[in-house]
Amino acid sequence: MDEHIDPAEHGARQGSLVIVGGGEDRENSKDVLARFVELAGGRDKKIVVITAASKIPEEMWAIYDQAFGDLGVARRSPLHARSRADANDPDLVRELDDADGIFMTGGDQRRLLGMIGGTALDTAIHRALKQRGACVGGTSAGASAMSGHMLADGKVDLNPEKGAVSLGAGLGLVQRVVIDQHFSERHRLARLLAVVAQNPYLQGIGIDENTALVVRRGVGMDVIGDGSVTIVDGRHMISNVVDIRDRSIPELIDVRLHLLPSGSSHCLPLADGQPAPAAFREVPAPLLEFLSNIVKRTPLL
Amino acid sequence: MDEHIDPAEHGARQGSLVIVGGGEDRENSKDVLARFVELAGGRDKKIVVITAASKIPEEMWAIYDQAFGDLGVARRSPLHARSRADANDPDLVRELDDADGIFMTGGDQRRLLGMIGGTALDTAIHRALKQRGACVGGTSAGASAMSGHMLADGKVDLNPEKGAVSLGAGLGLVQRVVIDQHFSERHRLARLLAVVAQNPYLQGIGIDENTALVVRRGVGMDVIGDGSVTIVDGRHMISNVVDIRDRSIPELIDVRLHLLPSGSSHCLPLADGQPAPAAFREVPAPLLEFLSNIVKRTPLL
Repeated sequence: MDEHIDPAEHGARQGSLVIVGGGEDRENSKDVLARFVELAGGRDKKIVVITAASKIPEEMWAIYDQAFGDLGVARRSPLHARSRADANDPDLVRELDDADGIFMTGGDQRRLLGMIGGTALDTAIHRALKQRGACVGGTSAGASAMSGHMLADGKVDLNPEKGAVSLGAGLGLVQRVVIDQHFSERHRLARLLAVVAQNPYLQGIGIDENTALVVRRGVGMDVIGDGSVTIVDGRHMISNVVDIRDRSIPELIDVRLHLLPSGSSHCLPLADGQPAPAAFREVPAPLLEFLSNIVKRTPLL
Repeated sequence: MDEHIDPAEHGARQGSLVIVGGGEDRENSKDVLARFVELAGGRDKKIVVITAASKIPEEMWAIYDQAFGDLGVARRSPLHARSRADANDPDLVRELDDADGIFMTGGDQRRLLGMIGGTALDTAIHRALKQRGACVGGTSAGASAMSGHMLADGKVDLNPEKGAVSLGAGLGLVQRVVIDQHFSERHRLARLLAVVAQNPYLQGIGIDENTALVVRRGVGMDVIGDGSVTIVDGRHMISNVVDIRDRSIPELIDVRLHLLPSGSSHCLPLADGQPAPAAFREVPAPLLEFLSNIVKRTPLL
């Protein structure tokens, strides 16, 4: 990948992700959802809400129907996939063909992937993002589901135990990362460290509630909302994790941690004399590889 | 400082610290306290318990009287300094002249320093450690009090707010670090990050309950007990902390984090062919500067 922003493409819609740590405000300022609508192209565009992560899809839709309605979005609709047959049903999947914004609700990411992973609906989400430059948003389970390796399950007490967290196959809208949510509120750093300790290939992303990591493909990323995004990078780590017993705590030396509060924004390196896109700052070196990876314009599947 | 272990001195008593994260077991296995007794020279040696951090010194002493008694220590006594006059009283301070182990209880580190900071008692602790090779232990407030810059006060919610934590002058048995306790149990990483963000000169040490960082001056360090020791190193950090408003959350890029679980042990670099002291491993490069600093044989005052 060319690690510089391509000025010719920078204005074009290259697709974006709004990765929300759960608990986003749906009743008052709705900052996070408003940004999602903006990246979808504005309130005149079409937004589809995928409820498959939830066992109560109708109630979920009612919440987002109201919220997106309040934000002035007239063309909004739910997409309830209640089975893999639904998720392969051409009539249902066609709903995404002209969607500018696709939002995945919370629930359980294992349920979401069990229902839509590898289906026509899954492919349609990739197509919308990568071929039409749609905005794909997801909150809580809908956020964790976005990565290729998905944090599926696992409780960690106070320290990162080996073998305590299991990964599954996610949607793969971003690769080489693992996403956790409700991050500071549920004290999940140990859980994320447990994943990264055993999978240094993956960089960990922890997103606080009512907070989003916004990824503009080919351009940069920024953080919005109330809290912060924590990035855990174990690539330089010196660890004994492969040698210790299951449920033991590994020694982890030289884990790199980045804390990006709301307002933090970074773009890809700029060519000489090239101005940064509005509100972005050029990424500092220790974040470059993370940013380059997450904004990468990946192939369709 | 010579960063290699000096073989001539390695067997000698160079002084040691047992820095305990609070809540150490005093009734059952007493692993942490047993290690303190061992480093003091064994159960035939004299142990003095300084209770000045606590508002209930008699009750504190009763607990440690029982615990050290159970561990077979016959020569054990309390040192109750209830005022700065006490802490400058030659008769009282003389108690430390032949103490092999000095243990500082929990309570409030500000109370402890207010009572003994800069007194004859303070000097006597340094003399015992540095001139006679005594073992100085401290738990909770007694642990935080050991560093030169002491974490004095401050509540941090979920993210490390600028200005939320205040430092005070500690005993200075170790320098260039700041020590927090009850670390994982009270979710204090954000608090430690708040200190390090504003004071990258200091490396943060977070110690879990019933866990100790054991420092053998001139030799190495190890972790014992139930939990882990977390080290936060902000020396390479890229941050906007000086530019943001008070109570805002800074951006922190490239903080180095080390997690040392119980059993982790590292010694200073070895000369060619020199064997590591029993149970120690030679320190890996990213931990070298931290280790070199913390085991440094500093001058008396």
